[in-house]
Amino acid sequence: MIDESTMMLHADELIRAALAEDVTNEDVSTASILRERTPGVAELICKQDGVIAGLAVFERVFKLLDPETLVEFFVRDGDRVHKGQKLAALEGDMRVLLTGERTALNYLQRMSGIATYTAQMVKLLEGSGLRLVDTRKTTPNMRLFEKYAVRVGGAGNHRYNLSDAVLLKDNHIGAAGGVKAAVAAAKAYASFTAKIEVECETLDMVRDAVEAGADIIMLDNMSDAQMKEAVALIAGRAVVEISGNVTRDNVARLKDIGADVVSCGALTHSAPVLDVSLKNMRPLL
Amino acid sequence: MIDESTMMLHADELIRAALAEDVTNEDVSTASILRERTPGVAELICKQDGVIAGLAVFERVFKLLDPETLVEFFVRDGDRVHKGQKLAALEGDMRVLLTGERTALNYLQRMSGIATYTAQMVKLLEGSGLRLVDTRKTTPNMRLFEKYAVRVGGAGNHRYNLSDAVLLKDNHIGAAGGVKAAVAAAKAYASFTAKIEVECETLDMVRDAVEAGADIIMLDNMSDAQMKEAVALIAGRAVVEISGNVTRDNVARLKDIGADVVSCGALTHSAPVLDVSLKNMRPLL
Amino acid sequence: MIDESTMMLHADELIRAALAEDVTNEDVSTASILRERTPGVAELICKQDGVIAGLAVFERVFKLLDPETLVEFFVRDGDRVHKGQKLAALEGDMRVLLTGERTALNYLQRMSGIATYTAQMVKLLEGSGLRLVDTRKTTPNMRLFEKYAVRVGGAGNHRYNLSDAVLLKDNHIGAAGGVKAAVAAAKAYASFTAKIEVECETLDMVRDAVEAGADIIMLDNMSDAQMKEAVALIAGRAVVEISGNVTRDNVARLKDIGADVVSCGALTHSAPVLDVSLKNMRPLL
Amino acid sequence: MIDESTMMLHADELIRAALAEDVTNEDVSTASILRERTPGVAELICKQDGVIAGLAVFERVFKLLDPETLVEFFVRDGDRVHKGQKLAALEGDMRVLLTGERTALNYLQRMSGIATYTAQMVKLLEGSGLRLVDTRKTTPNMRLFEKYAVRVGGAGNHRYNLSDAVLLKDNHIGAAGGVKAAVAAAKAYASFTAKIEVECETLDMVRDAVEAGADIIMLDNMSDAQMKEAVALIAGRAVVEISGNVTRDNVARLKDIGADVVSCGALTHSAPVLDVSLKNMRPLL
Amino acid sequence: MIDESTMMLHADELIRAALAEDVTNEDVSTASILRERTPGVAELICKQDGVIAGLAVFERVFKLLDPETLVEFFVRDGDRVHKGQKLAALEGDMRVLLTGERTALNYLQRMSGIATYTAQMVKLLEGSGLRLVDTRKTTPNMRLFEKYAVRVGGAGNHRYNLSDAVLLKDNHIGAAGGVKAAVAAAKAYASFTAKIEVECETLDMVRDAVEAGADIIMLDNMSDAQMKEAVALIAGRAVVEISGNVTRDNVARLKDIGADVVSCGALTHSAPVLDVSLKNMRPLL
Amino acid sequence: MIDESTMMLHADELIRAALAEDVTNEDVSTASILRERTPGVAELICKQDGVIAGLAVFERVFKLLDPETLVEFFVRDGDRVHKGQKLAALEGDMRVLLTGERTALNYLQRMSGIATYTAQMVKLLEGSGLRLVDTRKTTPNMRLFEKYAVRVGGAGNHRYNLSDAVLLKDNHIGAAGGVKAAVAAAKAYASFTAKIEVECETLDMVRDAVEAGADIIMLDNMSDAQMKEAVALIAGRAVVEISGNVTRDNVARLKDIGADVVSCGALTHSAPVLDVSLKNMRPLL
Repeated sequence: MIDESTMMLHADELIRAALAEDVTNEDVSTASILRERTPGVAELICKQDGVIAGLAVFERVFKLLDPETLVEFFVRDGDRVHKGQKLAALEGDMRVLLTGERTALNYLQRMSGIATYTAQMVKLLEGSGLRLVDTRKTTPNMRLFEKYAVRVGGAGNHRYNLSDAVLLKDNHIGAAGGVKAAVAAAKAYASFTAKIEVECETLDMVRDAVEAGADIIMLDNMSDAQMKEAVALIAGRAVVEISGNVTRDNVARLKDIGADVVSCGALTHSAPVLDVSLKNMRPLL
Repeated sequence: MIDESTMMLHADELIRAALAEDVTNEDVSTASILRERTPGVAELICKQDGVIAGLAVFERVFKLLDPETLVEFFVRDGDRVHKGQKLAALEGDMRVLLTGERTALNYLQRMSGIATYTAQMVKLLEGSGLRLVDTRKTTPNMRLFEKYAVRVGGAGNHRYNLSDAVLLKDNHIGAAGGVKAAVAAAKAYASFTAKIEVECETLDMVRDAVEAGADIIMLDNMSDAQMKEAVALIAGRAVVEISGNVTRDNVARLKDIGADVVSCGALTHSAPVLDVSLKNMRPLL
Repeated sequence: MIDESTMMLHADELIRAALAEDVTNEDVSTASILRERTPGVAELICKQDGVIAGLAVFERVFKLLDPETLVEFFVRDGDRVHKGQKLAALEGDMRVLLTGERTALNYLQRMSGIATYTAQMVKLLEGSGLRLVDTRKTTPNMRLFEKYAVRVGGAGNHRYNLSDAVLLKDNHIGAAGGVKAAVAAAKAYASFTAKIEVECETLDMVRDAVEAGADIIMLDNMSDAQMKEAVALIAGRAVVEISGNVTRDNVARLKDIGADVVSCGALTHSAPVLDVSLKNMRPLL
Repeated sequence: MIDESTMMLHADELIRAALAEDVTNEDVSTASILRERTPGVAELICKQDGVIAGLAVFERVFKLLDPETLVEFFVRDGDRVHKGQKLAALEGDMRVLLTGERTALNYLQRMSGIATYTAQMVKLLEGSGLRLVDTRKTTPNMRLFEKYAVRVGGAGNHRYNLSDAVLLKDNHIGAAGGVKAAVAAAKAYASFTAKIEVECETLDMVRDAVEAGADIIMLDNMSDAQMKEAVALIAGRAVVEISGNVTRDNVARLKDIGADVVSCGALTHSAPVLDVSLKNMRPLL
Repeated sequence: MIDESTMMLHADELIRAALAEDVTNEDVSTASILRERTPGVAELICKQDGVIAGLAVFERVFKLLDPETLVEFFVRDGDRVHKGQKLAALEGDMRVLLTGERTALNYLQRMSGIATYTAQMVKLLEGSGLRLVDTRKTTPNMRLFEKYAVRVGGAGNHRYNLSDAVLLKDNHIGAAGGVKAAVAAAKAYASFTAKIEVECETLDMVRDAVEAGADIIMLDNMSDAQMKEAVALIAGRAVVEISGNVTRDNVARLKDIGADVVSCGALTHSAPVLDVSLKNMRPLL
Repeated sequence: MIDESTMMLHADELIRAALAEDVTNEDVSTASILRERTPGVAELICKQDGVIAGLAVFERVFKLLDPETLVEFFVRDGDRVHKGQKLAALEGDMRVLLTGERTALNYLQRMSGIATYTAQMVKLLEGSGLRLVDTRKTTPNMRLFEKYAVRVGGAGNHRYNLSDAVLLKDNHIGAAGGVKAAVAAAKAYASFTAKIEVECETLDMVRDAVEAGADIIMLDNMSDAQMKEAVALIAGRAVVEISGNVTRDNVARLKDIGADVVSCGALTHSAPVLDVSLKNMRPLL
């Protein structure tokens, strides 16, 4: 999950930058009206059906502005939520609630949008052995949050970034002088703890990759027939990943290919936001 | 647009963070294969029709990794681009091209997606006096880029953040004890260089806001009839802004309200990305 | 004023940098003598008559070093204070009191100096409709604190920085090809939420600016006669700002010009500090 | 001086922060008018007699925005400059000149103000053996620049911060149980490369400090007679420093005390700025 | 190796921090003597036999202070170097050479010490199939440099950090309720691109780990006999790693165990530095 | 020692960077197994005899991840510790204990290694008047911790960095045109609070340095006979420092030279780590 260590080491800095992006010096509207700390409450309301994700980030926005802000949640990440549902109750300085509102919602709406879209796609693959995963097509400076949302939505993650697994693409293979040479170079250079994946466009490449000892074979933009042939050829000697413009609309037909994993950039780059809103804010008497 | 000063003072830090998000210590795949600086070229290809935005950011990603990378553009921000069109030629160390590729494309695809969506909505308002603008519903740590993309798409910007204009919402008004008191407080507190906007839900609020000297009146989720009445009541004494769940599908009907501005969160939070890709990478002989 | 959000998002970083500027690795004098946490108390004493400003910043310096430091204030920002007056009582680790002392006082003496100087100038304009405001002639990395101190002293703020309002100066006007073209360009480019100000040196410029729809007209280094003529010409259609080497010694004569605002760089760049001091520090028995 | 290493390691970060303080996202006035890089020139003009200091910092502001900006200086730090004198010629993108102008001048006017004030005080001590030095009463985040300006003005620096020399004040002495114990503790704890200074209010303290082996004795707010007696008592066994509300108006009488050094907070906290300005900006044809 | 991207994204910040650690405001010795840029040269001399590593980092220190510094190397990382050998010639501002000297040498001596120690251990394993790798027992904020030095010395890297592979230790296994449950949990949670390693103390644990599908089995502090039994049991179904207080003095006996990898914390935490020095610095005439 | 101010201002940032070096996004092993906060305990065990140093830093690692972690120490910095001794008991979220473990130990083992090595050398000089001190040959970004560990081990510190004392080496002297000119330049330039040290290779240089008023004379790589002659020549007029490849093996013979201080780079660059370990971690029932 996004545990305390991850929050402290990585999320906080990004959230603080997002807040500073929204406040040059002060929230002038709020400062005009509320000159003193003013205890108040508000509610987080869902305005659309979906899967919620990012509650801890939503809360953290307010805590970073004022650690004394209280947020009580009535749902947990991964829960299905409904239009009109009250998701949380907030209590704290109204100035903090007003200043943090937009940033908190911007995180929550986007993360929940991804979880919702992911859950829809996961459902389409139900019953098959095919596992849905994300890609590195994330929004800059949002990867931590977006990859987490994918997991909340029920799918898995592909490698986090360029450093934690080897993925040899056509340019690497070309520069190395072929699949076998590329895999050999990766085995020699990379840590023995890193898996090696090869992006293959032809069955010959698939054969070379398996023989060279690749851990994962990505079938890149192949026809269904080719993919099935590739699966047969690999015969369990490597994990098989399918890739290439997969969306909600075309994922179902991939269930029968026999592959292990299907990766999908749309999860993070094209999921519409889930509408959430802060309502019923009022001073505490 | 995003001129040199803005790039140096604000964009570079965000781009560098996005790159670091994608590289913990090294691009292990590329480092496995290319042990030395290897001059190479590549092309930026458009894979979908749309409006391009973010070319300078795309270039900057590579320049930050290696200032000697060269990017020649065949289009400019705001140009309509077509599937298959070659947008740019890159030349530099292939290791840099490979390592920067995903981050550069992640910026470009998102910014161009926003510009494309914005241009579509702007077209729907053509001929009317109604100006389309964005909101603060941007992706965290992407506001600079997303608001710029909206402008490239032909729309305008609402305030940049909480500090550069006053926008009094229901909570401010409630806390102040009414529209008039809220506007008076803002006039007393905020700089005389800041415009004051009031979010109004009723005609009474509109009347109070105008009389109190608000510069901008936002009609929030009013019916068309109410909005027309409000416009008549305001009678040019303040700028009139329409707001509330505006999208491509429902914006056209607002042309006849007589308002000056319509704000739309969907521009930045729901525009699908524009598909762009790096192709034909190869070493320079 | 400088509320919790502003403190967390912007002030803390500056205060921490100021402390680090004063401590490379340790306060070697204090570390030599006090090897352990040593509870102690001290008093903040005013050594000169004036207006106090920056108490929250003063306190924050110690809290950032040790959140358990307690500061009890006997005055509030904006209060007139007198030589010998006890302004606050501090209690905490004497090492923290000693290490933070100079930085805390450096902020407080400068902010209070500005508030004091500002209050003197505000008094000189009493009874007139002319409002005193500051400029961007602030000390680098002190703007947040200095502009706040101006407000504490009873004056208003001009725009915070280059991003939150348009101010067209001679170079902008020259490059645009005239006042009218410059204002038109700004209206087309800037957010509709931003006010547009024009710096005018002649009556012709004033006339053009008003006709072009400028929100604010700055009369730059005009004679009193010219300024009165300009005010008549503007006739309420724009806010009128006077500017140019205004100080305590010459501000009074501007009361009768009929302008709305007078801006004064001296408030932030030439106010002498107010002498404050930490006294009676002693260990708690 | 502020050499390249100091600039890279410390000044740049502060200057960049100062620029970011002045630009949230863009210089909206300049961006409205100048949509493209526009080569231009400008002149730096002195508007008051004084001593110039900070030229390298002035230049750096523009270089950080655009390394291609050229600044040719006609004077050097420490030169006496006169009202109307042309100090430098600038050439670069007019957008950069406009955006950087205020920040560059804010540094230069303040640093030159300090150098000017310092030079006046140094002159008052001419012919005596008494050396004028600054204190730690500097503006937060300006110490590097202000202490440099003091040196340019002809005076010397006291310790840079709390880490680079020992200065035992009344609270340290009280906590240690007396001057001798305090000096002994400092000798035991601090590096043997650090000098030890003792702030003395009585002749008994002076005697103890000398006997304990203090390197420097500060005579704090003593009468002239007392100070002379202290100098006689010290008899060259330690450097003698005078301290306490020294200004331009009262420094001259200290020439005959026989002390080595006089420290003065006013140099950095009360020097009025020197008026400098950017003029004759125009596009290059 | 440490290519341009890694340098820009990660090394520069650490090197800059190391320089700032050595320079609070200025190199006062150098600034005292050299008031102007003074072109000079110097030589990097080896004072001990060993394997050199970190030349690019050594150079970068000077480049960060002044990009115009030139460093010509006569050796490459991984070369064996000898006492008295001239490794590089430097040319640049003598102030920069003097200010950067210590930091540059501190990096080089430590990285070369690690490469030297590593090469000695690698030699002891020559002819066996056992590969030497490092651990996470690196010096804080030196991992990038130390793990690179290990590779230069001829050994391999274990995982870079806690994020790029799964390593289940006794506490994880205990909390999960056994080896099988722990491996299952990791397979469910972690990316399919991450290898899973299990630290085993008994043969039963080894058996469970292999059956659960672990990719790597670490034999933790087992006797030689136990380890051989484990290797036989694993029978090629997983990579076998040996661990536990391995040093130069005891590594040779592990050659015959039949394991694949031996990890050794001493490589990074106990390698003595290699003595290198800057000599023959002199001004260029 | 490393008091609260030093921790807040300098140590925290370095520790946080060290943690981020070890966690790109999450501790994937721990996150796989422990999905929720799981209270647990663990013990810090010493696995080698030595002197412990860095307990506060060890604790801070966990506190930065989660302020609620509790660490109870049974020893204090500087205590002699023994193989098998329990040094501390930890209680907190097991996820935090697991994630912080390696970084905390990496600091503690290195700092304790330095303290142990230092204590051994200090013992060798016992009974002589010769004081052992460190140098600037520290690990980059570890100086704060390493110089502190030297003090814990019973030795003293040389200057902290290039800014807090003058040390004129051969290159400075050559550039100045001789020892006397160099010392004079330093006296003119540096603060009067800074001591001036001169590195001397000949007796002539020693004589010049003393006559020029140097505070400290470093005898650089002189023979014992030369050093004794130098001490006689200096005759108490300056502190005498011995330098040059001093280690545990050769330091004892220096006791009779009559010098005041001996500096030793090996303290920080060649001390082996002290083995410490986290044991008996288990969930709290």
